[in-house]
Amino acid sequence: MARDIFILTEQDLRKCVCLDSASVDVVEKAFAALGKGDVIMPPILSMEIPQAHGEVDVKTAYIPGFAGFAIKVSPGFFENPKLGLPSLNGLMMLFSATTGLVEAVLLDNGYLTDVRTAAAGAVAARHLAPREVKVAGVMGTGVQARLQIEAAHLVRPFRKVLVWGRDEAKAEACAADIAARLGVEAVAEPDPARLVAQSQLVVTTTPAREPILKAEWLHPGLHITAMGSDQAGKNEIDPRALSAADLLVCDRVSQCEKLGELRSSIEAGLWEGAMPPELGQIINGTASGRRSEKDVTICDLTGTGAQDTAIATHALEMAREAKLGSVIQS
Amino acid sequence: MARDIFILTEQDLRKCVCLDSASVDVVEKAFAALGKGDVIMPPILSMEIPQAHGEVDVKTAYIPGFAGFAIKVSPGFFENPKLGLPSLNGLMMLFSATTGLVEAVLLDNGYLTDVRTAAAGAVAARHLAPREVKVAGVMGTGVQARLQIEAAHLVRPFRKVLVWGRDEAKAEACAADIAARLGVEAVAEPDPARLVAQSQLVVTTTPAREPILKAEWLHPGLHITAMGSDQAGKNEIDPRALSAADLLVCDRVSQCEKLGELRSSIEAGLWEGAMPPELGQIINGTASGRRSEKDVTICDLTGTGAQDTAIATHALEMAREAKLGSVIQS
Repeated sequence: MARDIFILTEQDLRKCVCLDSASVDVVEKAFAALGKGDVIMPPILSMEIPQAHGEVDVKTAYIPGFAGFAIKVSPGFFENPKLGLPSLNGLMMLFSATTGLVEAVLLDNGYLTDVRTAAAGAVAARHLAPREVKVAGVMGTGVQARLQIEAAHLVRPFRKVLVWGRDEAKAEACAADIAARLGVEAVAEPDPARLVAQSQLVVTTTPAREPILKAEWLHPGLHITAMGSDQAGKNEIDPRALSAADLLVCDRVSQCEKLGELRSSIEAGLWEGAMPPELGQIINGTASGRRSEKDVTICDLTGTGAQDTAIATHALEMAREAKLGSVIQS
Repeated sequence: MARDIFILTEQDLRKCVCLDSASVDVVEKAFAALGKGDVIMPPILSMEIPQAHGEVDVKTAYIPGFAGFAIKVSPGFFENPKLGLPSLNGLMMLFSATTGLVEAVLLDNGYLTDVRTAAAGAVAARHLAPREVKVAGVMGTGVQARLQIEAAHLVRPFRKVLVWGRDEAKAEACAADIAARLGVEAVAEPDPARLVAQSQLVVTTTPAREPILKAEWLHPGLHITAMGSDQAGKNEIDPRALSAADLLVCDRVSQCEKLGELRSSIEAGLWEGAMPPELGQIINGTASGRRSEKDVTICDLTGTGAQDTAIATHALEMAREAKLGSVIQS
């Protein structure tokens, strides 16, 4: 029996999905479900291919209340830039949660991952950052540096952005892009300590393997979202900062303790006591969030399959409304 | 930068891939690579969705020498027949092993899995069955019962087939299909002990959770391929049969000890000593196979991501040659 399967290209998806409040809200809904404990999210399937300096991750999650579940394939092949190709790539598939039949193939080349990753930053800032953020800082100068600041600006409309990167020219280019995009003042800040000192909200977006944000830079009224670490070898935040903060929140504890900032803290023997709460528990009010404007909060984001299911579901809805994509009968 | 991605439907794939010696050979090549130890094959990602009586498995493997690697998604949703839909389904994706870019989406609805699963049965029979097989028996009456017999017939051209199933009418229908397809005598045999007694080659293809083939039925010159068990709860072969046989061979030990017949034997405390050899080691001659026509051999097949990479690569080649499929630019 032939069925219709939607094929959506990156071009289609860029026309109907962007980093807006609808994307943030659907990702927030996924975190809320995660926090209730009724999401089924198996461990990430990960395959490293040393011969090609490549790796591929597969994520999925079933969220009650969502009509479908996504499976996302994210390859990262780090020799690609030599061939003029991007390192990161991938696609998502959306399956009916009732029949398991494939409904759509989203050939997004990683675009939806960019959006859902940034949307998680917005959710973290919405629930954890101080109410008033005048200055936001970002460490790193890539796609996520731009998108994380754009996402945070949706929920905390700050007037000034500081950008730090190892390469000053890239930091300046990133600041210029942010200024143009958001209509805010944005400047490169070569001293990361000064960047943190001036900011109420800092997002770290680097693939660092040694901390780039030191514990002694924490100050009252600071929120940090660390989204760069998603592998066992990565570490952006000084492990001492995690225990020094008033609150650490994980997107998913079982992932953060293996792939996130929490891992470095545990390995350094600096994490004592209970496991931190998850972002969804803060959203649902089943765990305490920021207690005052003076608290120091840190959110450790590793990226979850639940976000993929949320954004893929949203994308298919938007594409159908906009009558985008091709239909294949199979 | 837009790239071409091949989209192949089940209809396209049925036109260019079938259960023939080319499919068997490419699957044998995958097992040979597995046996050499140079395949990268992470554990299966498995998600159960009890709310929908469904499950979904994701398999993958990188095989040196193959230009691509497949990722296969296999949903099984067991309420589907009530809706007039098949329980099993799925698709495969083929990625470049050099760049990680998606090259093809194979919307096969499980067809390629059927072919590569049967092809593994042919590889097992080729390397383990007695040279002369006059009668082949099959337990189970589904798609794999038909295909496994067809596959075995490619490498051991027997003249008679016996079919056992719980439902005699289904066994008769299966026998009729096999007779028509292969031009051999094929009859339903209601007594499984008699089926085994008369056969030199038996394939078990059921989702049994209690053994359907007893140890006391083993006889000199018998080969059994057990392909039904692919989950922790399944068990087709009496655990005592595994230790009683002269040789047990696994498609992949790390899978069989969790999902195959070997699991039941280990759990019953009946498996002692070394882990069994793998099919690829028999193919490569790095482990001993059948020593005489009188040996009793058993092959435990759980299904490997390496087979998926092999059949997907083969399918894309065949489809390109036949100029089948659609091209999407993404």
